[in-house]
Amino acid sequence: MKPMTRIEQSLATAIAGSEAPGGPPRLAGAIRHAVFPGGARIRPQLCLAVAQACGDDDPGLSEAAATSIELLHCASLVHDDLPCFDNATTRRGRASVHYAYGESLAVLAGDALIVLAFQALAEAATQSPARLAPLLATISHGVGMPFGIVAGQAWECEPRVSLTQYQRAKTGALFTAATMAGAQAAGANAAPWRALGDWLGEAYQAADDIRDVAGDPLVLGKPVGRDAALLRPSAAAELGLEGAIALFDHLVAGAIEAVPPCKGADQLRALVRMEAERLVPQAMCADLLRAAA
Amino acid sequence: MKPMTRIEQSLATAIAGSEAPGGPPRLAGAIRHAVFPGGARIRPQLCLAVAQACGDDDPGLSEAAATSIELLHCASLVHDDLPCFDNATTRRGRASVHYAYGESLAVLAGDALIVLAFQALAEAATQSPARLAPLLATISHGVGMPFGIVAGQAWECEPRVSLTQYQRAKTGALFTAATMAGAQAAGANAAPWRALGDWLGEAYQAADDIRDVAGDPLVLGKPVGRDAALLRPSAAAELGLEGAIALFDHLVAGAIEAVPPCKGADQLRALVRMEAERLVPQAMCADLLRAAA
Repeated sequence: MKPMTRIEQSLATAIAGSEAPGGPPRLAGAIRHAVFPGGARIRPQLCLAVAQACGDDDPGLSEAAATSIELLHCASLVHDDLPCFDNATTRRGRASVHYAYGESLAVLAGDALIVLAFQALAEAATQSPARLAPLLATISHGVGMPFGIVAGQAWECEPRVSLTQYQRAKTGALFTAATMAGAQAAGANAAPWRALGDWLGEAYQAADDIRDVAGDPLVLGKPVGRDAALLRPSAAAELGLEGAIALFDHLVAGAIEAVPPCKGADQLRALVRMEAERLVPQAMCADLLRAAA
Repeated sequence: MKPMTRIEQSLATAIAGSEAPGGPPRLAGAIRHAVFPGGARIRPQLCLAVAQACGDDDPGLSEAAATSIELLHCASLVHDDLPCFDNATTRRGRASVHYAYGESLAVLAGDALIVLAFQALAEAATQSPARLAPLLATISHGVGMPFGIVAGQAWECEPRVSLTQYQRAKTGALFTAATMAGAQAAGANAAPWRALGDWLGEAYQAADDIRDVAGDPLVLGKPVGRDAALLRPSAAAELGLEGAIALFDHLVAGAIEAVPPCKGADQLRALVRMEAERLVPQAMCADLLRAAA
């Protein structure tokens, strides 16, 4: 089965579990709206690709790890879009959850998705129960305080913030959790997989900054120019567009070099290259730099 | 060590872990504000009392289960107090989290507390790793969709709602999780402990309804009369004050009878009686009924 099929099926099973008869139907709708249809699913793809590179001997657990990471990512998007943060009315090319369902249900949908992420992991740990605690530790580290994505979002509420600290927590932490959890789900040592996640997280953030300055809102599915409007620190703002593109290329090269020796290394490197081109197409860069010259 | 000391120490350890240098300090402050000083800590006390009645052979895991339940309760209070729900400015006799730290940090504090609840559990499962998955399943069931406290809060956003369904999810689910998780943390079968949690959850909700109508805001530490103001379903509204007090007495009696045979049964029954008197003092009932006559 293709990785994307495995991810979508595993997400569908998790979400269906929260839709049992007898629950509040509008919250169920808001949760489904937050997860389907999805974006590129890059974090769960990365998690599953690392699990495969490590042998993928417990496919149900690998899929649950990937699902858990994606549900937490979706939860963070729902809460980041709230009026008290970005007040974004669109997401993935359609209404954001709070715009479609109201603020109350958006808060609760995010909460329910966080709980569901851990629940899905627990339910899948029957074959390899000893892997559950380390997986939970990795994933909660990538999401919670003091260094996970919740901490990253909280840096926007601080009077002083370093760009590195902010971006590492807000974006990098969940990429790092994705590669490390992929290894742990397959019973492998997580440590050698940390660097790949770190590089990719930084690359993704740099790409997001470039696209926020240069992107087309129809392609991104969300408003552009938000970072500047919200006075958020950004690599593109600090380095200029040319510098930000050079930084992105450097980070992608770092990620490719960071793939540990394993039988799936070539496939992983190909995935990184493909994702880099999807995020920041070479043709777009050429156009942008020509226009800026 | 006294149960309350164990609970406060375990909560303090969990919260300290989220305050490591390098994290966002204002969010750390909001999280601490949400947890300390606490309320009656009735849910973790119940969890620990059941664990003790079942032998408490892994005290660290029992404390983590109690801590996890309390952190999730605190998270739900922080989010319930938000402007889009109750818009409560006070909680436990002082400023609510959103009133003290702003709405953004209140949303994030709730999120971080949910993550921390699962993280604390995972970290404590070293001695008895096989207990982690069932514990997680019990606790996430009590919190998430479709029947946990998040679902309960979501019933307030539905056009039609049954009082039983609403209260069972909003309040009862976490009490049931507390008794069952207490048993599971001690390696015991959770099923016989479900009924005790169910009865207590209903009793607690009935007490809350009575106190919302009759209570003194200085004693409760939060505004009274909120249910009526927010058009929330309530036993006191449906049955009248006398009926609600009779219901409460019936539910407490049910809880006392539901304590399964075990060596700590007498202590547990005493805890239930003491908690009932704390929640709805006999003297208060007499005064209320005299005033209503």
